[in-house]
Amino acid sequence: MRNIKMVLEYDGSKYQGWQKLGNTENTIQEKIEKTIKMIINEDITLIGSGRTDAGVHAKGQVANFKTNSEIELNDFLYYLNVYLPKDIRVKDMREASERFHARYNVKKKYYVYYVYNDTFQSPFYRKYSYHVPEKLNVENMNEASKLLIGTHDFRAFTSVKSKKKSTIKTIESIKINNSTPIISIEYTADGFLYNMVRILTGTLIEIGNGTRDVNSINALFDSKNRADAGFTAPAHGLFLEKVIY
Amino acid sequence: MRNIKMVLEYDGSKYQGWQKLGNTENTIQEKIEKTIKMIINEDITLIGSGRTDAGVHAKGQVANFKTNSEIELNDFLYYLNVYLPKDIRVKDMREASERFHARYNVKKKYYVYYVYNDTFQSPFYRKYSYHVPEKLNVENMNEASKLLIGTHDFRAFTSVKSKKKSTIKTIESIKINNSTPIISIEYTADGFLYNMVRILTGTLIEIGNGTRDVNSINALFDSKNRADAGFTAPAHGLFLEKVIY
Repeated sequence: MRNIKMVLEYDGSKYQGWQKLGNTENTIQEKIEKTIKMIINEDITLIGSGRTDAGVHAKGQVANFKTNSEIELNDFLYYLNVYLPKDIRVKDMREASERFHARYNVKKKYYVYYVYNDTFQSPFYRKYSYHVPEKLNVENMNEASKLLIGTHDFRAFTSVKSKKKSTIKTIESIKINNSTPIISIEYTADGFLYNMVRILTGTLIEIGNGTRDVNSINALFDSKNRADAGFTAPAHGLFLEKVIY
Repeated sequence: MRNIKMVLEYDGSKYQGWQKLGNTENTIQEKIEKTIKMIINEDITLIGSGRTDAGVHAKGQVANFKTNSEIELNDFLYYLNVYLPKDIRVKDMREASERFHARYNVKKKYYVYYVYNDTFQSPFYRKYSYHVPEKLNVENMNEASKLLIGTHDFRAFTSVKSKKKSTIKTIESIKINNSTPIISIEYTADGFLYNMVRILTGTLIEIGNGTRDVNSINALFDSKNRADAGFTAPAHGLFLEKVIY
């Protein structure tokens, strides 16, 4: 059986996220699976590198699926982009080794969160950035971000309450770029917990607007209590940028 | 009477252009006039630096209007941005001299046209750039653009057939920036005829894709015939960038 790896981009505005749900068709996984079925007349299961929440965007989501079809990949890519909705685009398709698994084999993920930091939101960025009207102190956010880097128990930074799975992750880097009025925060880690990037961002924004102390970060690793961390920054400012295997 | 000058941004996707039309409310001028009326309870007439066509965007449209209201401008700006649709934003409002007229006093205008030059269009640029899948020869487009600079009769580059108005304009510069896959073409002139930027762009694209010769430009100034110039590039790739007085 062929194992096909694809890289894709999507504007998540109109979707209920990546992952297929029971009673709706409005997920990205489902749109792509149905379009593939239309093209090769085969039911396939698309495995994403991970879920993205409702409203989250992607510039480099990776997925794989197995198929018996012998369709030429260039044709496949072409038909997919013709039949998929315009807010989903397949950038690349190639053969992967039989053992490649888009979720299990992830080495590193990059997420970028965009904040539009000006009195009024721009018509062009309103769907792709979170509007914060009060001026943020980016220096303090930078300082705080350094405390987040490294291997920590990020339990306070996830909305999942199950205690079964490990909540220890390693953040390799957080790069904050202040290109007025847009502040971008790029997170690189070996993986992220559910809602983790959005809660990290909410926490950094609270530090930027002065409602939270830079040094409060360390206490969060000890408290392990979601309620002590910042708010969950909204989905529409978040992009899954890249996945490394 | 106060004369107020405003700078505004809009995503033109959902509008029938700037200019008020008889039987529709769906123009940018009308949206702003109605919102102003709601705030200061006064019928004003908004004068734009020029019309933008249906679907054309603006990052720096300028307009002025006269009013008897004594409202403080900071409050006015705030309320406008609260009540206007999210795809229109007023960036700046200030008092202008009594004689300032947003259309008559224009010295220079900047327009930028964005081409997305890749096999498939990006979900994020689909509303803000024109998709050209075949690889364009930017060097040839650059060469041709040099022939367009200067004072010429641009009659072949406008869809208006009236011969009353002068069709002589001066293009000060055309800057083509190739930041793969996005090619931006910035036009600066003392003014533009109806559809002129879009026809100039269509002509340059035809030169880029090889269906038209670089040197065919000069003949267009002589022919003065719209049918001899290139196609009218679609509205959604065009931005009114800046107006200078």
